[in-house]
Amino acid sequence: MNINDIKETLGTCDFGIDMMQLISKLFPICRSITGRGFRETLNVLKEQVPLLVHEVPTGTRVFDWTVPKEWNINDAYVKNSVGDRVIDFQKSNLHVVSYSLPVQKTVSLNELKAHLFTLPEYPEWIPYRTSYYKEDWGFCLSHNQFLALKDENYEVCIDASLQEGNLSYGEYYLPGEAEEEVLISCHACHPSLCNDNLSGIALSVFLAKCLRSLSLRYSYRFLFIPGTIGSITWLALNENAVSHIQHGLVVACVGDPGKMTYKKSRQGNAEIDRAVMHVLNKSGEPYEAIDFFPYGYDERQYCSPGFNLAVGCLMRTPHGRYPEYHTSADDLNLVREEYLENSLINYLNTLGVLEGNWKYITTNPKCEPQLGKRGLYEAIGGQKERAANQMALLWVLNLSDGQLTLLDIAERSDLPFETIQFAANILERHALIQKC
Amino acid sequence: MNINDIKETLGTCDFGIDMMQLISKLFPICRSITGRGFRETLNVLKEQVPLLVHEVPTGTRVFDWTVPKEWNINDAYVKNSVGDRVIDFQKSNLHVVSYSLPVQKTVSLNELKAHLFTLPEYPEWIPYRTSYYKEDWGFCLSHNQFLALKDENYEVCIDASLQEGNLSYGEYYLPGEAEEEVLISCHACHPSLCNDNLSGIALSVFLAKCLRSLSLRYSYRFLFIPGTIGSITWLALNENAVSHIQHGLVVACVGDPGKMTYKKSRQGNAEIDRAVMHVLNKSGEPYEAIDFFPYGYDERQYCSPGFNLAVGCLMRTPHGRYPEYHTSADDLNLVREEYLENSLINYLNTLGVLEGNWKYITTNPKCEPQLGKRGLYEAIGGQKERAANQMALLWVLNLSDGQLTLLDIAERSDLPFETIQFAANILERHALIQKC
Amino acid sequence: MNINDIKETLGTCDFGIDMMQLISKLFPICRSITGRGFRETLNVLKEQVPLLVHEVPTGTRVFDWTVPKEWNINDAYVKNSVGDRVIDFQKSNLHVVSYSLPVQKTVSLNELKAHLFTLPEYPEWIPYRTSYYKEDWGFCLSHNQFLALKDENYEVCIDASLQEGNLSYGEYYLPGEAEEEVLISCHACHPSLCNDNLSGIALSVFLAKCLRSLSLRYSYRFLFIPGTIGSITWLALNENAVSHIQHGLVVACVGDPGKMTYKKSRQGNAEIDRAVMHVLNKSGEPYEAIDFFPYGYDERQYCSPGFNLAVGCLMRTPHGRYPEYHTSADDLNLVREEYLENSLINYLNTLGVLEGNWKYITTNPKCEPQLGKRGLYEAIGGQKERAANQMALLWVLNLSDGQLTLLDIAERSDLPFETIQFAANILERHALIQKC
Repeated sequence: MNINDIKETLGTCDFGIDMMQLISKLFPICRSITGRGFRETLNVLKEQVPLLVHEVPTGTRVFDWTVPKEWNINDAYVKNSVGDRVIDFQKSNLHVVSYSLPVQKTVSLNELKAHLFTLPEYPEWIPYRTSYYKEDWGFCLSHNQFLALKDENYEVCIDASLQEGNLSYGEYYLPGEAEEEVLISCHACHPSLCNDNLSGIALSVFLAKCLRSLSLRYSYRFLFIPGTIGSITWLALNENAVSHIQHGLVVACVGDPGKMTYKKSRQGNAEIDRAVMHVLNKSGEPYEAIDFFPYGYDERQYCSPGFNLAVGCLMRTPHGRYPEYHTSADDLNLVREEYLENSLINYLNTLGVLEGNWKYITTNPKCEPQLGKRGLYEAIGGQKERAANQMALLWVLNLSDGQLTLLDIAERSDLPFETIQFAANILERHALIQKC
Repeated sequence: MNINDIKETLGTCDFGIDMMQLISKLFPICRSITGRGFRETLNVLKEQVPLLVHEVPTGTRVFDWTVPKEWNINDAYVKNSVGDRVIDFQKSNLHVVSYSLPVQKTVSLNELKAHLFTLPEYPEWIPYRTSYYKEDWGFCLSHNQFLALKDENYEVCIDASLQEGNLSYGEYYLPGEAEEEVLISCHACHPSLCNDNLSGIALSVFLAKCLRSLSLRYSYRFLFIPGTIGSITWLALNENAVSHIQHGLVVACVGDPGKMTYKKSRQGNAEIDRAVMHVLNKSGEPYEAIDFFPYGYDERQYCSPGFNLAVGCLMRTPHGRYPEYHTSADDLNLVREEYLENSLINYLNTLGVLEGNWKYITTNPKCEPQLGKRGLYEAIGGQKERAANQMALLWVLNLSDGQLTLLDIAERSDLPFETIQFAANILERHALIQKC
Repeated sequence: MNINDIKETLGTCDFGIDMMQLISKLFPICRSITGRGFRETLNVLKEQVPLLVHEVPTGTRVFDWTVPKEWNINDAYVKNSVGDRVIDFQKSNLHVVSYSLPVQKTVSLNELKAHLFTLPEYPEWIPYRTSYYKEDWGFCLSHNQFLALKDENYEVCIDASLQEGNLSYGEYYLPGEAEEEVLISCHACHPSLCNDNLSGIALSVFLAKCLRSLSLRYSYRFLFIPGTIGSITWLALNENAVSHIQHGLVVACVGDPGKMTYKKSRQGNAEIDRAVMHVLNKSGEPYEAIDFFPYGYDERQYCSPGFNLAVGCLMRTPHGRYPEYHTSADDLNLVREEYLENSLINYLNTLGVLEGNWKYITTNPKCEPQLGKRGLYEAIGGQKERAANQMALLWVLNLSDGQLTLLDIAERSDLPFETIQFAANILERHALIQKC
């Protein structure tokens, strides 16, 4: 069974519901770029796919960076003078600035305010803040909570630790016929935020589950890593293996209602870029393409000039472009199973193009072969697809010169890749073209 | 006299009327891809240009194809129970499906219907059908005729033969200074259809007549062939000669009222493509350009990947885009002398570009030569064209670096090729540029 | 101090007023392509910059041309029968066709008319005419003056001389670190016409004054030459030095109220073309770009195919596109200090791009360097420019692969060159990139 077969059976599965269930299970966990929450997340994923979990010690040099101390948190709160928890980590792990130093003291309101973060324009939402590389502490809260704070003393407690430990990441390698790899990478370091990036984690997991059952041309490598430091760490520790990566996608923000958005690789016209663009173009749905820029997710590292990998980022609404981004409103209501499933289908279609994008050479380069005597005009399906399929046969014959791939032919003919691939399969069976 | 001179004298000729007369003479003949009708057609053309007629025996292998049996027809009809010819080949040769097997029997209406073809959306028109490569028989008739058929028995007669014989085609080779050739190819296998392709036959004949009287740079090869099997046969039997073909045009559908349409060669930006595009662009008339696709006329074969010749197709309305296409309405009323003549002029202008598209090198590469002291500002005609002609002089001098052709210069300057050519001629006479 | 510093101090100077003063001083002088008026002009310029004045004898062969005789004029008039000067050179030096032969005679009105030139569509304006290479004489006058001429005899006097002498031109060479040069060329041969080209002369002079005080990467060569024959003469006499010219601009028509217009070099996408286009694009003001054509000013010669220098022409309204062009209305009212200053700033910004357009190579090609630990996020200025500056840091790091220049990076990131340059300077100070 190859990737086209899986797509045909997708309709009978409930991957959307399955992905939502996984997201719901992961949602409460307090993740950060290191620590127990990240490990717990990987353990949940292991129930789905046989991940390898790697642990990289604090202090390990990774290119210009150093693996940071491990951060863990047990509890945190701000209590008012009568002992009520006016800010309570138990209610939302967003309340604590990630990587906050442990603290336990009583402070005045004024002193406290220097460590509080709110979103005045969305007074009900809690913002998400981090302080990975600058030792500090802080709380995030809704602006309405903030306004209700009285001028009194507060007991501040962050029961956290920042110590020598490890950076953890998950890796799943799925071997195909070729050593050449497709990299699927998602950041898994955010706490209770759904679209960014539980959606990406869930899609990656179910993509892996789909591919596992298939006969694959490429090998696939799935990375579940903390953002930035995780990809830098992986690249530093696997520098020799990088050359196997032929194509790659960073998976992020794939569950919101927005249209699909593709951020191209730094190369800009790599096969992965053309494959995604073709799939989105033929999807019949609105989409947006944006050129590479050196900001965003881990494509920043994969596309640094010393690697310059063909890695793009296939999202729905990009980071920073939806109001719920990096707030408590990026919750289980923002992400929906139908959007997750639609994103998954676009990923599968893209991988379908990569898997099937072979070069062929016609066995009859001079003039057309006689299709009629081989019954090929009858072989190409019902009345409706007949015209497109017949044109596809003629295009594949005309352009299979040993230089052009099926994607080249799909682009030039403006026919869907699958139609071109279908025609190529028929022609190959009749020995009218040969794989190069 | 070169091709620019012929264009100047064209206004005094009546080529439009002459082409219509030839079309009228050829119209009644029942042509098919083989047989007496095709030979008779070539004999009529021989009265105009000294064609060579080639005969290729049935069964000859031509690449993946085989020259078919020869088909000839004497008469055909369907008679009703009182003996009236309700379908009569004598009235229109479109009534019989081309390559129908001989048949002589009495059938019920129901049995007959399985062999009848009509156009319900154009109830007055007889469709044109063929069955070259599948042995069968059938009749075409107007839908109104069809509706009038009573439920009775019919006598069906097709007095035809399908036997060992020959495939015939006409070839006219007009030698020029160079061995390099321009191919002019038209299909001549359709029965009483005017635009498709008596118009193409007539235009090709009169193009040949124009060129015969000229001093030519290129050699010209005119082919009058049955569609598909004819070009495949010619290419197979002349495989070694193909490399002489530098440029080519397939001539079809050049007499209808539609605007000019150019279907580019598979190469897409060959000199012939650029020449036609320049001519149409400067014609001041609407036109359409379409990219190559592997369907249509004999350009399919010339542009198969093993040949990939620079052959486009210059038409008015393309096949399938006018309602009369492949029906009895493609008759002597659809095609008009003014459209034929306009098409011929566009062909002549295109060949004028090819003939005149030389590279020159300036004898004064460093700074402009002084045109004034040579009287060149006076040499360039009346007030009106003066500005364009002066700019043409400067453009030719500035761009004649031995790399660029006059067509390159016309494209970059956006001046008509003839203006650039006029300037080049003056500059060459004054030894300011030299032909490379 | 480099060119970016000069731009910062420009606001405190009154270069606009200074340029207008120079123009006013030069306006009354009767210049032509040779003669005392041209020399007097160069002497005025010498007060500003240490020009070298070259004298090239009449008869010197310069490529296809010959240095013409020197023309000088003392006085000229047409007197009517009562002795009134109805046309008077003392009132406007445009009244005499430049290079008019000396003449002293009495003629009828009819005879006179053959030597008179007017502009009926602008009846108050005197046209500007020359007859450099055809020996003749003539007067220019307003059409209203012409209509007032009575049918009587006229005394015609042109007290001029056309004799062996010299062609003069001014040259100012400003050495920079490199031998590679930027050429700044302006024609200085027109009599009392302000925009064409006293504006260009004034801009060139003040550009030279600005650059003199700076530490320069490139050497700069300023030419003040008669149009056409001047550039041909310079090129012919300095043929071996031409290879030093890397970039160049012809300066003309830079004082009128029209928007900036850039005529690209013949190469079309040379560094100078891209630098000007970037500056105009980021100026926030309307502008127009036109492709090279072999007409206009001295770029015709610099861009002749044997030289093909990267020389464009940066103007405001191009020659022939404003009604005052080559008439007495191109006077001190048409040109304004604010337009001159705006043009000067666009020139300085362009040279700023050329001077700063280095290639860098990142010292951390694999993954991003950690900017935070170096305090770089704080180093990049106030809140407002912070986002752009941060993106500029990331772009420079991502694209500094040793192949791309800062202008390449500015174009791809769509950030202003100065922002990119600012980021590159910071990164270079922190040893994160190195100049190639």
